[in-house]
Amino acid sequence: MSIKITGVGSYIPNRIEKNSDFQKHEFLYEDGTAFSQSNSVIIEKFKAITGIHERRYIHQELNNSDIAYLAANKAIEDAKIDPETLDYIIVAHNYGDVLHNDVQSDTVPSIATRVKHKLRIKNPKCVAYDILFGCPGWVEAMIQAKAFIKSGMAKKCLVVGSETLSRVVDKHDRDSMIYSDGAGATVVEASEDEGGILAHESATYSFEEANFIFFGKSNNLNAKEERRYIKMHGRKIYEFALSHVPEAMKVCLDKSGKSITDVKKILIHQANEKMDEAIIKRFYKLFDMTAPKGIMPMSINKLGNSSVATVPTLLDLIVKGKMEGQEINKGDVIILASVGAGMNINAIVYQF
Amino acid sequence: MSIKITGVGSYIPNRIEKNSDFQKHEFLYEDGTAFSQSNSVIIEKFKAITGIHERRYIHQELNNSDIAYLAANKAIEDAKIDPETLDYIIVAHNYGDVLHNDVQSDTVPSIATRVKHKLRIKNPKCVAYDILFGCPGWVEAMIQAKAFIKSGMAKKCLVVGSETLSRVVDKHDRDSMIYSDGAGATVVEASEDEGGILAHESATYSFEEANFIFFGKSNNLNAKEERRYIKMHGRKIYEFALSHVPEAMKVCLDKSGKSITDVKKILIHQANEKMDEAIIKRFYKLFDMTAPKGIMPMSINKLGNSSVATVPTLLDLIVKGKMEGQEINKGDVIILASVGAGMNINAIVYQF
Repeated sequence: MSIKITGVGSYIPNRIEKNSDFQKHEFLYEDGTAFSQSNSVIIEKFKAITGIHERRYIHQELNNSDIAYLAANKAIEDAKIDPETLDYIIVAHNYGDVLHNDVQSDTVPSIATRVKHKLRIKNPKCVAYDILFGCPGWVEAMIQAKAFIKSGMAKKCLVVGSETLSRVVDKHDRDSMIYSDGAGATVVEASEDEGGILAHESATYSFEEANFIFFGKSNNLNAKEERRYIKMHGRKIYEFALSHVPEAMKVCLDKSGKSITDVKKILIHQANEKMDEAIIKRFYKLFDMTAPKGIMPMSINKLGNSSVATVPTLLDLIVKGKMEGQEINKGDVIILASVGAGMNINAIVYQF
Repeated sequence: MSIKITGVGSYIPNRIEKNSDFQKHEFLYEDGTAFSQSNSVIIEKFKAITGIHERRYIHQELNNSDIAYLAANKAIEDAKIDPETLDYIIVAHNYGDVLHNDVQSDTVPSIATRVKHKLRIKNPKCVAYDILFGCPGWVEAMIQAKAFIKSGMAKKCLVVGSETLSRVVDKHDRDSMIYSDGAGATVVEASEDEGGILAHESATYSFEEANFIFFGKSNNLNAKEERRYIKMHGRKIYEFALSHVPEAMKVCLDKSGKSITDVKKILIHQANEKMDEAIIKRFYKLFDMTAPKGIMPMSINKLGNSSVATVPTLLDLIVKGKMEGQEINKGDVIILASVGAGMNINAIVYQF
C-alpha cells in the first residue's frame, strides 16, 4: 500500500500588494528608532535578500477559513472524490480567523470544522481538526495523514494549509513586507499504486530556538495599544535553517531509499529567496554536488511568504502547469521541505 | 503490541472562585436585557443544573503553557521515563496563551513548543505540536498518539490537555460560571503488556452544529470594546450530546470486544452534571440497563469545566487515590468520552 496525493488545489488572493505600496510606511527598528536610509533603499535591500517583489492579501470580507475552504474545494474537485468519503480534514494554520480590523484570533470552532461546514459534508465520521506547527504545519499535517492511513485508521484525508498573515503584521516592522496570505490543499489517499510518501523527517528545536518567531509588540513604541504581531529574529532563523534543514532533507532522502540523482524537484517553504538558495546549495554539497538548474521552483517573488500555504500552493501551480518551465511527471521523485516557528523542520520524499 | 498509559499528571490551580464570588456580577441575556431574578436565584439554579459549586482560576502571572508544563512534568515523573526519549509532545487547547488582562491568543510558537522548552528537552526528534478540537482535544490527541504508535512512527508520546477559560469569559454571561482552568497530561507508550487502548471512536458534526460553541460579543451591548468571548448555545448542546454521545460510546465499546458489564468506570468530559448524568443513563439504556452507582466519577462540583483538561485531570485524581470512593485497578476496563466545540465527540475504551 502507498500513500498518494490524488488532488491538489490552492487559493491565491487576487489583491496584489506591491513593494511600492510600502513606500509610505514608517519603518522602525525594534528599539523604536528610525532607519537612516530612505524607504526606497530599505525596499530595494529587502527585495535583494528575500526575492519578494509583491505579495497577496485577502479582501476585507474574507477570512482564513474562507480561503482554506476555497483551496480545499479545488483539491476535492481535482481528486474527483465524493467529499463524504473523507476520513479526516486536517487544517494547518497558526493564527486562526482574524477578522479585518480586529485583533483577536478566532479558533473556536476549529478552522477545520468551518471548512467542513462550508464543504457541506454531512458524514460525522469525517473528523476535522487543526494543527499548529509554525510554517511547516501543512507538511506536518501530511505526515499525520500518513500516520492515519498507515495505521489503518483512515483511507482518505484532506490536508489544508491556510494563513492570512496580513491580519497580524506590524506595519512599522520592515519584516512585514515578507508576509502574505494564501491557502493550499491536497487530498491524500491509500493507494495500490507505487510511490507516494516514501519517507518523512520531522523535528522540533525548542531548547534555545523556541522564540525565534514570536508574538510581540509594535516597533512603534509610542503606540498606545497593547496589540501584538508576528515577529521574528531573521538572522538567527537564517543561521538555524542553514545548519539544520539540509541535514534533515538528507536524512529523509536516505530513509526513502532514493538517490540524490533521482530527485527531480525540491519544493521548499518560501521564506526568503537567499535563505532557500543557501539551503539547497548546502544540501547538494552534502553529496559533493552543485544544485541542478531549475531543481527548486520559487514563487516567493510574486506570492511572498504565506506560511503553511507556500508548499501546497507551489505544488498546485506546478502540477497544473501554471509555472513556466516547471513540470512534474509520473514517476518523478520530489522533496517537500519546510522550516518555521517552533522552530520546526520537516521533509517528505514523495514519488508521483 | 498494546498502547498504554504509563504516567498521569495534572495541575489544578489553587485559586478557588466560588459561586458566591459571582454574586455582584451583572448577568444579562444575549439581547442585553437584565434577568428578572436576583443573582442568588440565578446562581442556585445554575448550581442545580451544572452541579458546579466552585471552579479554579490560574493566578495572574501564570499562563496556559505554564500549567500545561506543570501537568506534563508530573506525568513524566509518574511514568519514570527520561523526557529525552519522547517521540511526540501533543498539546490540546483551544485559545493558546492569553495573558492576564489581555485579549489576544498567543499561539506562535505552539504551546507544545513552549512545554518542550520548559521541560528542557533537547532531542530535536521529539516533535511538538498543538491540536485544536474543542473540549474533546485531549481524548483526540490520545487517538493521534495511538496512530503514531500503531503506524510505527513513535514509541512514546506525551499528551497534554490544558486550558485557561478564565481568560476568555464574558462576565455578563451566566455561562461564565461554568468555565474553569486546568491541565492534565499522560505519557502513552508502546507496550508488550495486555490491554491499553482497545478501541476509539471519533466524530465531527459540523453540518448544522458548527457554531453551537463560538466566539461572540459580550451580552453587555453597551460595552465599547469589540472583544469576543467563549459563547455557547447550551440547550442545543444538551440535546446534541444526548442524541449522539451514548451511541458513539456504544460503537466504541462494541469495537473493543468488551461487554458493558466489563466497564468499571466512565470518565466523561465535565461539561454539566445534569447533562453527563443524562448521557450515562441513556448509554446504559442502550443495553437495557441502569447505570451502576459510582460508575461515573464527577469532579465538576469542585473544579468546573476546564475544557480539554477535565478528562485527564479526573483520571489523575482517581489513579492517585485522590477521589473518595473511587479507584482503578489493574485489568479494569474504562471508557473515556468527550463532547464539545466542533461539534466533536470521541471515546476510548481502555484497559489498565
